[in-house]
Amino acid sequence: MRRILIIGIGAGHPDYLTVQAIDAMRRADLFFMPDKGAEKAGLNAVRLQMLERFVPEGGYRLVDFLIPARRPAATPEYKESVGEWRDKLEAAYRRLFAEDLQDGETGAFLVWGDPAIYDGTLRIIDDMRTAGHELEVEVIPGVSAVQALAARHQITLNRVGEPITITTGRRVGEGEADGLSSAVVMLDNHQVFRRFDGEAEIFWGAYLGTQDEILIAGKVTDVAAEIVRVRAEAQAKHGWIMDTYMIRKPEKD
Amino acid sequence: MRRILIIGIGAGHPDYLTVQAIDAMRRADLFFMPDKGAEKAGLNAVRLQMLERFVPEGGYRLVDFLIPARRPAATPEYKESVGEWRDKLEAAYRRLFAEDLQDGETGAFLVWGDPAIYDGTLRIIDDMRTAGHELEVEVIPGVSAVQALAARHQITLNRVGEPITITTGRRVGEGEADGLSSAVVMLDNHQVFRRFDGEAEIFWGAYLGTQDEILIAGKVTDVAAEIVRVRAEAQAKHGWIMDTYMIRKPEKD
Repeated sequence: MRRILIIGIGAGHPDYLTVQAIDAMRRADLFFMPDKGAEKAGLNAVRLQMLERFVPEGGYRLVDFLIPARRPAATPEYKESVGEWRDKLEAAYRRLFAEDLQDGETGAFLVWGDPAIYDGTLRIIDDMRTAGHELEVEVIPGVSAVQALAARHQITLNRVGEPITITTGRRVGEGEADGLSSAVVMLDNHQVFRRFDGEAEIFWGAYLGTQDEILIAGKVTDVAAEIVRVRAEAQAKHGWIMDTYMIRKPEKD
Repeated sequence: MRRILIIGIGAGHPDYLTVQAIDAMRRADLFFMPDKGAEKAGLNAVRLQMLERFVPEGGYRLVDFLIPARRPAATPEYKESVGEWRDKLEAAYRRLFAEDLQDGETGAFLVWGDPAIYDGTLRIIDDMRTAGHELEVEVIPGVSAVQALAARHQITLNRVGEPITITTGRRVGEGEADGLSSAVVMLDNHQVFRRFDGEAEIFWGAYLGTQDEILIAGKVTDVAAEIVRVRAEAQAKHGWIMDTYMIRKPEKD
């Protein structure tokens, strides 16, 4: 039997790690290190710092894991594109397990944020189990970027008695949040928050929890241009960016 | 200057605590211990266990904090009721700060789950600052029951490209989730999940992360009666219950 740990490592700072996540890291024989874009450019360095700090005695193996490149999301073919990407990804995982994870061993994925929130690892592992691969899986929750954003801006995600909606830049660009009193937006590469005007506020954060953290808040009409500029500069400087934000409209009486 | 730490302690098990939360607990001079319902009956015992484990040298004070009882939520007066409750609560906090938290000291609230998700502490502190009380506030995010639920059932909160909605039992009872492909439901005292039929699945959990954890999953039509029975038995046995669940409808092709 092979064992897989899907460990939520929180939103960036090693202090976001839970006791449970640290214990899990110390049980792993090997770590799968993703080898693409932002992961490769910046996030793997953070993963390695976490391992050095919390598993100082070493004794684990690192296995590079090439995530197949994703086609850019275009509205009509988006689901299909994701399906193809997942097939390639599953083939990559299968190869990894066959070649790198021996029977009786424990392999771990260090998932940015929380494995349940806009992350594909769990879904693919689930498909693999459905396809007949015997894997014992354990999932460790982690502090997501959404929560780090709220904590750093000292805001709540819900108003009294109201729901929390977490959605994607693509959907907000299509108007999904226009009728909502608030929404948290992830994966927005096109700064669609510029569609909100009037009294709508934005609470924006990038590189949350890290030493490069940037926070900007205010009325969208006042700070949108600043966010676009700061975001472009930071992305150019670091070579990658992860950001998220909340849009909140005035409370109705 | 008085300092307030609002510390998310996670969904129940001490292992859900983050490094940041433990560090914050060790910085506090006193802890405000809520003195009502489920908090008093079960949750404070867990808070004390956490303090014994992570601040073994002691040296902190515990201050009982009587949260004014909340009127039962009735649909038309709900917002008003919450407003009155908050006023009473603010008076209680003000008394606490004046009598128990000395200038230069640090007081901490140990908030179940995450301070940004259906918790009132941050909102009241915010009102107090607006009202002119000088407080230096720090917010520490924590693993919420929603995330513990997802991790224990090994599910994701979102489908590919779809949003995450976290809402209340009251709103779901009014039909809010009927048109959604999935929803996470908190604060449901009336088991409104029974309105879902057909292929809808439920992933239910109570006392998540604790040794009393209960998990039930299946089609709503198959497991609803079991959940209602198990929930009532557990509530009678423990004197309190905290539960949450996800409703998920079949994926459209």
